[in-house]
Amino acid sequence: MKKNKFKSIGILCRPGDKTIEATVHTLSDIITTFGSEVRFDATSTLGFNLNAAQQVDREVLGKNSDLLVIVGGDGTLLDAARTMNQYHIPMVGVNLGRLGFLVDVLPNDISELIPQILSGEYMSEPRIMLELNIKDKDGINTSSLALNDIVVHKTNVARMIEFEVFINDSYVYTQRSDGLIIATPTGSTAYALSGGGPILHPSLEAISLVPICPHTLSNRPIAVDANAQIEIKRIKGQFDNFQISCDGQVNHIVENTEQVTIKMHQHKLQLLHPTNYDYYQLLRAKLNWAAQHYTNG
Amino acid sequence: MKKNKFKSIGILCRPGDKTIEATVHTLSDIITTFGSEVRFDATSTLGFNLNAAQQVDREVLGKNSDLLVIVGGDGTLLDAARTMNQYHIPMVGVNLGRLGFLVDVLPNDISELIPQILSGEYMSEPRIMLELNIKDKDGINTSSLALNDIVVHKTNVARMIEFEVFINDSYVYTQRSDGLIIATPTGSTAYALSGGGPILHPSLEAISLVPICPHTLSNRPIAVDANAQIEIKRIKGQFDNFQISCDGQVNHIVENTEQVTIKMHQHKLQLLHPTNYDYYQLLRAKLNWAAQHYTNG
Amino acid sequence: MKKNKFKSIGILCRPGDKTIEATVHTLSDIITTFGSEVRFDATSTLGFNLNAAQQVDREVLGKNSDLLVIVGGDGTLLDAARTMNQYHIPMVGVNLGRLGFLVDVLPNDISELIPQILSGEYMSEPRIMLELNIKDKDGINTSSLALNDIVVHKTNVARMIEFEVFINDSYVYTQRSDGLIIATPTGSTAYALSGGGPILHPSLEAISLVPICPHTLSNRPIAVDANAQIEIKRIKGQFDNFQISCDGQVNHIVENTEQVTIKMHQHKLQLLHPTNYDYYQLLRAKLNWAAQHYTNG
Amino acid sequence: MKKNKFKSIGILCRPGDKTIEATVHTLSDIITTFGSEVRFDATSTLGFNLNAAQQVDREVLGKNSDLLVIVGGDGTLLDAARTMNQYHIPMVGVNLGRLGFLVDVLPNDISELIPQILSGEYMSEPRIMLELNIKDKDGINTSSLALNDIVVHKTNVARMIEFEVFINDSYVYTQRSDGLIIATPTGSTAYALSGGGPILHPSLEAISLVPICPHTLSNRPIAVDANAQIEIKRIKGQFDNFQISCDGQVNHIVENTEQVTIKMHQHKLQLLHPTNYDYYQLLRAKLNWAAQHYTNG
Repeated sequence: MKKNKFKSIGILCRPGDKTIEATVHTLSDIITTFGSEVRFDATSTLGFNLNAAQQVDREVLGKNSDLLVIVGGDGTLLDAARTMNQYHIPMVGVNLGRLGFLVDVLPNDISELIPQILSGEYMSEPRIMLELNIKDKDGINTSSLALNDIVVHKTNVARMIEFEVFINDSYVYTQRSDGLIIATPTGSTAYALSGGGPILHPSLEAISLVPICPHTLSNRPIAVDANAQIEIKRIKGQFDNFQISCDGQVNHIVENTEQVTIKMHQHKLQLLHPTNYDYYQLLRAKLNWAAQHYTNG
Repeated sequence: MKKNKFKSIGILCRPGDKTIEATVHTLSDIITTFGSEVRFDATSTLGFNLNAAQQVDREVLGKNSDLLVIVGGDGTLLDAARTMNQYHIPMVGVNLGRLGFLVDVLPNDISELIPQILSGEYMSEPRIMLELNIKDKDGINTSSLALNDIVVHKTNVARMIEFEVFINDSYVYTQRSDGLIIATPTGSTAYALSGGGPILHPSLEAISLVPICPHTLSNRPIAVDANAQIEIKRIKGQFDNFQISCDGQVNHIVENTEQVTIKMHQHKLQLLHPTNYDYYQLLRAKLNWAAQHYTNG
Repeated sequence: MKKNKFKSIGILCRPGDKTIEATVHTLSDIITTFGSEVRFDATSTLGFNLNAAQQVDREVLGKNSDLLVIVGGDGTLLDAARTMNQYHIPMVGVNLGRLGFLVDVLPNDISELIPQILSGEYMSEPRIMLELNIKDKDGINTSSLALNDIVVHKTNVARMIEFEVFINDSYVYTQRSDGLIIATPTGSTAYALSGGGPILHPSLEAISLVPICPHTLSNRPIAVDANAQIEIKRIKGQFDNFQISCDGQVNHIVENTEQVTIKMHQHKLQLLHPTNYDYYQLLRAKLNWAAQHYTNG
Repeated sequence: MKKNKFKSIGILCRPGDKTIEATVHTLSDIITTFGSEVRFDATSTLGFNLNAAQQVDREVLGKNSDLLVIVGGDGTLLDAARTMNQYHIPMVGVNLGRLGFLVDVLPNDISELIPQILSGEYMSEPRIMLELNIKDKDGINTSSLALNDIVVHKTNVARMIEFEVFINDSYVYTQRSDGLIIATPTGSTAYALSGGGPILHPSLEAISLVPICPHTLSNRPIAVDANAQIEIKRIKGQFDNFQISCDGQVNHIVENTEQVTIKMHQHKLQLLHPTNYDYYQLLRAKLNWAAQHYTNG
C-alpha cells in the first residue's frame, strides 16, 4: 500500500439530499480503508447516518484536518474556501455528477482518485483569494474573504450607482454603472465572464475589475497585478443603495461605511486536483468550445 | 407673423433650480409674444415666480394643451411621456445646456426655434412606447408605460434571477441573469446600450431584449418586431427578488404577481424636433464617434 | 393521396460525396412517387448515377421548377438563394445530418416531411435579401445578391481601413475598423453574431450594420429599417485594400470603384419549413442556450 | 546645473514634415545646451537641415546612444522599439501635439521635461515585448519583435481561418475566426481593445489572447502569464491565407511555414516618462472616461 500523506481528513458537503449522503459514505469508507481518519462537518452532514463522534464543528474540523474533501458543487467549495482557508488546509472537490470548475473529481472516479490523492499523487494549485475590508463611520472594521469575486453593486434601485475607484492610491475613474466585479482568476470564469470580463489563467497573479453595464462604453475590463490594493470611494455623503457581496454568498450593506478596500488575501487556497488535471480541457468542457454554432460556407 | 399652429402650450420642467426658472420665463414670454397661451405644470414649477392662475395640475395641462414643451434633461421628457402621453399631445424638449437624446433644443436657440415650431416648421417623429401589464394573484391588473425601457431585474440579492421568456406565446429561453432590458429604439441608446444591446434607429418599429450579465454567454441581444408580445414567466412559486422598472423611474415589486406582459403601447409619442434635426449627428455627438482612441501605425 | 401543390421540383446540392448522392436518390424517389417530376442541377450532381436527361443547367432548372429542394449545409442554400432567387421559386433545405439555420429537414425525416410539403403543408417564410451595387470609374455597374450579409473588409493588410458610411444620404460616421458587416435577419445569426451584432428575428424587416474591431469603442452595432439605402464612401483617392464579399462566397475587389451601395433586394426568398418549424427552438439548439456554464452558489 | 545622466542621445522621428524638423531642432539644442551629444537617425531625418556628421545609421545610433528620444506618434515608438530594442537603450517619446499612449511628452513641455529626464528625474517603466518565431518547411527560422501585438489573421479571403492554439504545450482550442490577437499590456489598449480584449496594466506581466470574430461565442479573451509560450498550429496541410503581423507594421506570409511560436522577448523595453506620469490619467484622457453618454433620470 502506498504511503499515506494525509492522516486526517475532513469532509464538508452541500447540505442535502440522499445522493450526497451516499457519496459521503463511500468517501468515508475509502478514506478509512486507506488508513486515514475521517471527520465530518456537523452542519452540512446534519441528519446523515454517521458516527456522531465524527461529526464536529468547523473549528474542530479545521484544526484537526490535513486535507478537506468538499462534496457538492462549486458553490460548496467557495463556501468552504471562505470559511476554512484560515486553517491552511488543502482542499479537493468531489462533484455530484456535474463537472465544476473547482470540484473536478467525478463520483465514479472516487475509488480510484481519492487513494491516489491521499498517497500524494496529485497536482497542487495555489489560488489567490480576495479580502474585503470595510471600515464604518464608528471605526468598526469588518473583513470578509472571497475565492471568486467581490462585487460592489446597486440594490433596491433601478438606477445606476456612482462611485470612484482607486488602485494603489491612484484615481482610476468615476464610474456610473450597475456595479463593479472584482475577480480573481478563479472568479474570472464565473460572474465576471457574464459581465464581459476576460478569462485569467489561475497561474496569473492578477485581479480583474469588470464594470457591470457601465454608462461610459469605454469603461472596459481591466486586469491589474494581484498585489494592487483597490479602494472604492463614495462620491458624496453615503453609500446609499450599495451592497457588497463576496462570492455571491455573503452580503454587506454599506450605508454606514467610510472606507471599502479590496486586496489579495495573504494566504492562498491550495486546491488539489487529480494528476491528469488540465485547465484548458475544463474550459473547453464548461464553455462548450467545441460547439459549432453556424456554417456560412 | 407666421401662422400659429399651436394655440395652447403647456410647459413642464425638471423641478428645480433658478436656471430652469429663467428658461421657463424666457419660454413663456416667447410663446405669449407669438400669440399662444401658456400653462405651467404646477408641481414642477412650484415656487417659481409665475402667475398662479396659469399653474395647473397635469390633468388640466393635458386636456388643454396642443403642445407640451419639456424643460430639463432626457429624464424629464421620459417622465412627461409616461404620464402625459395619454392626452395625445406632441412634445418638444428644451435642455439646460447639455444636449440630450430627447431634449434637443438648446437654451440659446429658444428664441429662434420655438417660434418656428409654433408656426409649424418642425420635424415630427413618432416614437413607440412600451406598456407593462402585471396581473397579480388576486386578479388585480396594474399597467405602466415606458418610453425607453422596461427592465426586469433582481433586487436585494447578489445572485442571479431565473425566468422564462415567451414571445408571441413561443418559448424563447430560460434565462439566468441579473435581469432583462426590454427597450424601444428610443431606449436603445440608454441603459440597453450599456448592457451590450444594439442601437435601433427610431424609425424601426422594433423592440430589443438585452440580457444583463447572462449566465449563458450565447444569450445575445435579440430585436423583434414591435408588435410582438413579450411574456416573462417565473420558474416556480414566486417572483422572489424580482423588480420591474419603467424608464428607471417607476418600480414594481412583483412578488405576488401571476403574469407579466410587455407590448407596444397603442399610442406613439409625437416628438417634435427643429427642422435641422439629424439623428446620426446626435449619435455622433453623444457617443463621441469622432474620438480617436489610439494609433497603431 | 394528397393534392400535389408543386408539380415540378428542382434538386440542387452540395457538390460531393456519396452520402449526398444517397440522399438525392431517396429524395428523387419520394418526389416521383408523389407524382411530381424531378430535375437536378447538373453541376452539383456531376458524377452522380442519375438520368442524364434530368440533369440540367441552373437556368433550365430555375425556369422549370415550382420548388427547389436544397441538399447540403446552410452554405449550399446561401449559394442557391443568391443564384436562383431571380426565378422566384420557393426553397426548402435538407441537411446532411447536422441541423442548419436554413436547412432544417433532417435526412431521417425526408420521407415524412417532403410529401407533406409537396401537398401544401408547410410554413412559408419570406426572407429579405441584400443587393450590392458597385459602380466603377468607367461607369460600369456590377451587382450581386446576398442572403446573409455583405461585408466590406480589409484585405492584404494588417492595418485598419477607413471609410464613410451614409444611410439614406445622411452621413453616419467615418469608421476605422477591420470592416463592416451589413446583415439581414438571416445573416444576424452568422458572421454578424461573431462580430457582436444582435440577433434580428426573421420577421423584422431590418438590416444591421456591425463594425468589425472598430477603432472607436462606441461604434456599436446599429439596426435600421430594411428599406434604408446604405452607401460606403472612400475617404480619398481609392478603395485600396478593400474587398466586398457577399455571403462570404463571392468577392469583389473594389480598387477601381466609384460608388458602393447596399439595399434590400426587391424579391424576397420564400423559405419553406415543416409545419412544426419554431425559430426560437432553432436558436436554442444552435446557440446552446440550455448550456450551464458555471455555478456560483 | 544638474548632473548629466545620459551623455549621448539618439533622436529618431517619424519621417516627415516641417513640424517634426522644428521639434527635432529644438530638442537637439536643448540636449546640446545640457551638455550631452546628439546623433540623428539618418533615414527618418533625411532632408532635414542638420549636421550631416551627426546623421548616422540605426546601428551606429544604437551602439552609441544612452537614450533614444522618439519624436512622432505611438507608431514611431513601436517601430523604434522593434528595431532598436536590441541595443538595450531606454526610450522616451515626444509627441507632435496629440498625446499618445507611448509618446507622452508634449512639444510645449520639451524645454522643461527633457533636461529633467537627462538629469535623471524620470520614471522608468519596463514594458514586455513579444517575439515571433517562424520555422518554415526548409528549416529556415525567422524571428520578429513586437511591443503591441502579434496578430495571426486571414488575408485575401472572406472566410474564417481555422487553427489550433497551444499554450506551454497544452492544447487550448481549435479556433475558427478572422484571427487571433496576442497582445502585451502595452498593446492591450490598441488593436486588442477593439477586438474586445481587456486592458492589462503595464506592470502586470501578462499576455492576452483575443480572438477576432470567433465562430464560437464563448471563445472569450484569455490572459496568461507572460512566461507562457504560445504555439499556433495549422489544422492540415498549409497555413493558406494566413498572415502574421507584428505591431501592424511588419507582415509575414506563412504559407510555407511549419511552426509558429510566440513568447515574451528576453529584453524588456525601458520606457521613460516624466515624473508626473500617471497611467490611469492617460487612460482617462485617451478613452474619454469622463464622457457622459446619456442620462436616464
